Amino acid sequence: MLRLDDGQDLFETLTGFAEREKVTAAAIVFGIGMFQKATFGYWDGKQYQPHDLTAPHEVVALHGTIARVDDAPSVHLHGAVAGPDHHLVGGHLIRATVGILQEMVIETFPGRTFGRPLVESWGLRMLDLEPGSHP
Amino acid sequence: MLRLDDGQDLFETLTGFAEREKVTAAAIVFGIGMFQKATFGYWDGKQYQPHDLTAPHEVVALHGTIARVDDAPSVHLHGAVAGPDHHLVGGHLIRATVGILQEMVIETFPGRTFGRPLVESWGLRMLDLEPGSHP
Amino acid sequence: MLRLDDGQDLFETLTGFAEREKVTAAAIVFGIGMFQKATFGYWDGKQYQPHDLTAPHEVVALHGTIARVDDAPSVHLHGAVAGPDHHLVGGHLIRATVGILQEMVIETFPGRTFGRPLVESWGLRMLDLEPGSHP
Repeated sequence: MLRLDDGQDLFETLTGFAEREKVTAAAIVFGIGMFQKATFGYWDGKQYQPHDLTAPHEVVALHGTIARVDDAPSVHLHGAVAGPDHHLVGGHLIRATVGILQEMVIETFPGRTFGRPLVESWGLRMLDLEPGSHP
Repeated sequence: MLRLDDGQDLFETLTGFAEREKVTAAAIVFGIGMFQKATFGYWDGKQYQPHDLTAPHEVVALHGTIARVDDAPSVHLHGAVAGPDHHLVGGHLIRATVGILQEMVIETFPGRTFGRPLVESWGLRMLDLEPGSHP
Repeated sequence: MLRLDDGQDLFETLTGFAEREKVTAAAIVFGIGMFQKATFGYWDGKQYQPHDLTAPHEVVALHGTIARVDDAPSVHLHGAVAGPDHHLVGGHLIRATVGILQEMVIETFPGRTFGRPLVESWGLRMLDLEPGSHP
């Protein structure tokens, strides 16, 4: 488990954790807490249509994976958050700043390395559980 | 971890995985990705009121269990998805077709078998963690 | 895995489980099922603004932690639920009563004890993964 603190950048902190602990394959099992601010994306087939939060939100779902791209950690997250009216918005998480704190559970797969190669036909980087095993 | 690909039927693929790997008890820890299409249900006490997606959605929550019913895998999933307006809908997942890809984490419990017997009083199949242990 | 039954109080049941099994540090990986009723909170910086469900809802996200406070289990949960219109509400979970059943996966960390001390500057109890390790 990890605990992130108020004001920390979510992706920077997770990337730093992966580099420090030499994590090359992991599942981000869940995270809960708050986001001070965040941007979610909806993939319209060509690009992510962004949605910026205009107030802090309670984080109720946050899941993803850690892989390696160009010899650096690559963090992919989807999430959902509840605002002051308790309604939910979410999607592909583009960026987020922790509010108050974030409780996270990360499961690492020692000895494995996930990839996230760019798949030209989609124009997206896509998780590869066994890079190098394909022709 | 599993990766499902564009166009795959979610339930068929998970059922096939369970049969191939002889999984008789598992937790579907989470899934993220997209659904091309899906139908969610709300149990009104008598039946599932269905809701069909009319556009692809980002999958932000997907959790469930794999049990055995009539000597075959039984997959139960609840989920939440974000559409083009970033708002969320969800519930009991009735059917779903993967869009682009789906990253899934499944935890198996080797040596165990979960059941999902029909409970007459509810009219529902309900998870039984220790089938055969009841009088 | 745990299965909770119709009418059970979620927090009482999880607290009783933690006491009975002597769980002092755990992640509530996920829960799915229904809530007969529940109250979600949005932290406005001073207090939780509550939202009461007025109908049973499908539980699609439920994650949290179990720590120790004053020699008793402390359960913290965030969640999201779908109502009859399939739209989602959620946030910090204040109270909940199980409807029909709840399938839950809990990962315990034997030998560890999480704390949840009151942090005066926030006015909130906040997860401490290594209580006693701070000056």
